[in-house]
Amino acid sequence: MAEGLQITKIQQSPEIIVLGPPSVFRTHGKEFSSRFRALRPWESPLPLAQFLAAQAQNTQAALCSGTFSLSAAVLDNLPSLRLVVTTSAGVNHIDLSECRRRGIAVANAATIFSADVADLAVGLLLDVLRKISAGNRYVKNGFWPKQGAYPLGFKLGGKQVGIVGLGSIGLEVAKRLEAFGCAISYYSRNKKPSVSYVFYPDLRKLAATSDILVVCCALTEQTHHMIDREVLLALGKEGVIVNIARGAVVDEKELVACLQQGEIGGAGLDVFENEPHVPKELFEHDNVVLSPHFGVFTEESFGDLYELMCGNLEAFFSNKPLLSLVSEE
Amino acid sequence: MAEGLQITKIQQSPEIIVLGPPSVFRTHGKEFSSRFRALRPWESPLPLAQFLAAQAQNTQAALCSGTFSLSAAVLDNLPSLRLVVTTSAGVNHIDLSECRRRGIAVANAATIFSADVADLAVGLLLDVLRKISAGNRYVKNGFWPKQGAYPLGFKLGGKQVGIVGLGSIGLEVAKRLEAFGCAISYYSRNKKPSVSYVFYPDLRKLAATSDILVVCCALTEQTHHMIDREVLLALGKEGVIVNIARGAVVDEKELVACLQQGEIGGAGLDVFENEPHVPKELFEHDNVVLSPHFGVFTEESFGDLYELMCGNLEAFFSNKPLLSLVSEE
Repeated sequence: MAEGLQITKIQQSPEIIVLGPPSVFRTHGKEFSSRFRALRPWESPLPLAQFLAAQAQNTQAALCSGTFSLSAAVLDNLPSLRLVVTTSAGVNHIDLSECRRRGIAVANAATIFSADVADLAVGLLLDVLRKISAGNRYVKNGFWPKQGAYPLGFKLGGKQVGIVGLGSIGLEVAKRLEAFGCAISYYSRNKKPSVSYVFYPDLRKLAATSDILVVCCALTEQTHHMIDREVLLALGKEGVIVNIARGAVVDEKELVACLQQGEIGGAGLDVFENEPHVPKELFEHDNVVLSPHFGVFTEESFGDLYELMCGNLEAFFSNKPLLSLVSEE
Repeated sequence: MAEGLQITKIQQSPEIIVLGPPSVFRTHGKEFSSRFRALRPWESPLPLAQFLAAQAQNTQAALCSGTFSLSAAVLDNLPSLRLVVTTSAGVNHIDLSECRRRGIAVANAATIFSADVADLAVGLLLDVLRKISAGNRYVKNGFWPKQGAYPLGFKLGGKQVGIVGLGSIGLEVAKRLEAFGCAISYYSRNKKPSVSYVFYPDLRKLAATSDILVVCCALTEQTHHMIDREVLLALGKEGVIVNIARGAVVDEKELVACLQQGEIGGAGLDVFENEPHVPKELFEHDNVVLSPHFGVFTEESFGDLYELMCGNLEAFFSNKPLLSLVSEE
């Protein structure tokens, strides 16, 4: 009897294809599976294209990680797809124009992660300026009693901070750094009438007047390698860059060269051009703090993300408006 | 001629004894020596007592580090002393009642370091919650491509933070953590009428209602080992403690035991009971971030400190009011 009920429930659960899979599916897979019939291509020995051709021809909705490249070629194997829900805020991994052409709606994580990402930006910045990771290593390696006081760091208060991209994350970073006594300026496509921070329409000029740059913008064709050698040189020998956006907003090769040659003062990086691969030249510098793209990785946000992802999927299957539709620009 | 002028200048420079020596004397020794004739006992082969007996019988002013124990026995060898200027905010290393009895004024670093220490408190807290040092190690050891995504951390926003000691540093910590969306309560000797944060006259009750404790109080007879096993157990298995005050405010043996047994969730510690010696049991835990008592170590603050220390010494030698006299309680 119980078995019969379960079968009925499974038959009634709407089907989704899980692509990636996203980290939130690793942490909340059981909960997702109690609400949706989740196709798991990574558990199959078949290559993805064959799996999709065999299993997902009628699947209407996808749950997609922020690192899975959702290209036209993948979409070709999902002819019934009408919704992609990505667990990221950024949508640079999705071919949006192909989705538009095929009538596939895209929903994302919206601003659910903004506070966490902003927190990590401040954490990385404090770590670089105040040498926290390096100091932790110094103590844990037993150097303190032998080598004495640690070299001086730098004060955060009073610094000129340039925010690159004053969206939801950039605003959260600015709010936090104001409380530390920093002066905030920003670069953005357009001046934001709602804030009093100084606007720079020229990124190089922002870098030249800033002690610190915090990269918070989306990765698009326009922002790809926007932080180039000229911007880094304008930031200067004592300047610090923090990137919690996407690796490719920064020309990583030039960043490595500038750090190697002492052309900039330090870096706190959560994102890289070719993740999970990180240029080994960055490993040796104490003024470079690296984290494994975990800006959104908190238990609290993953709980919120699970709810939002399910909310979007359930809205779709019951023909209600999506909770976090990505609008076309 | 130039030599003659220099000799005249040295003869006119007032004499000070430098005890410790403080870190600021290492960074700004040249500047100090251009304004004062600085006796440097650590450069002499004589034991301190003999050096003082031979060289410092007429010395009226001392520049003293925050770790040099200025006891009655040391004061016995400085019969002309009328001023001690300590480079620390805390004065627990100075026998204040002996100074009072002998008519020796004490000046300190006042609130010059409050912002830096508060910044480090927030940095250590973000590091523990968001696993920044551990993540940095993970990337730099090359584990990311092999072992994949890093475990989830914890969100700072929404946390209940209990500030232990709402003085100048505690207020700076509170201001910063409000910007991260934390709810602030505090324990203090007295309720502060000027703030709206919730006051707990009972430290254990504060710990029981807090997710995070930040220890910001002075070390006194009353606060010695005030954070004991009961307070730590009240903080609980997911609780995090940050100490940027003085090591002995916390019962370090109990803290180590609680961390070993998982009775509390993590710790960010800049100070220890027996510096520079740190319990080795703390080295192995990724949820424990340790720094070598460098809360005040920024180039900017050391510049400010040098000015304040000189200002106090020059005020003393020209019979003007001290800039940062430590008042008796």
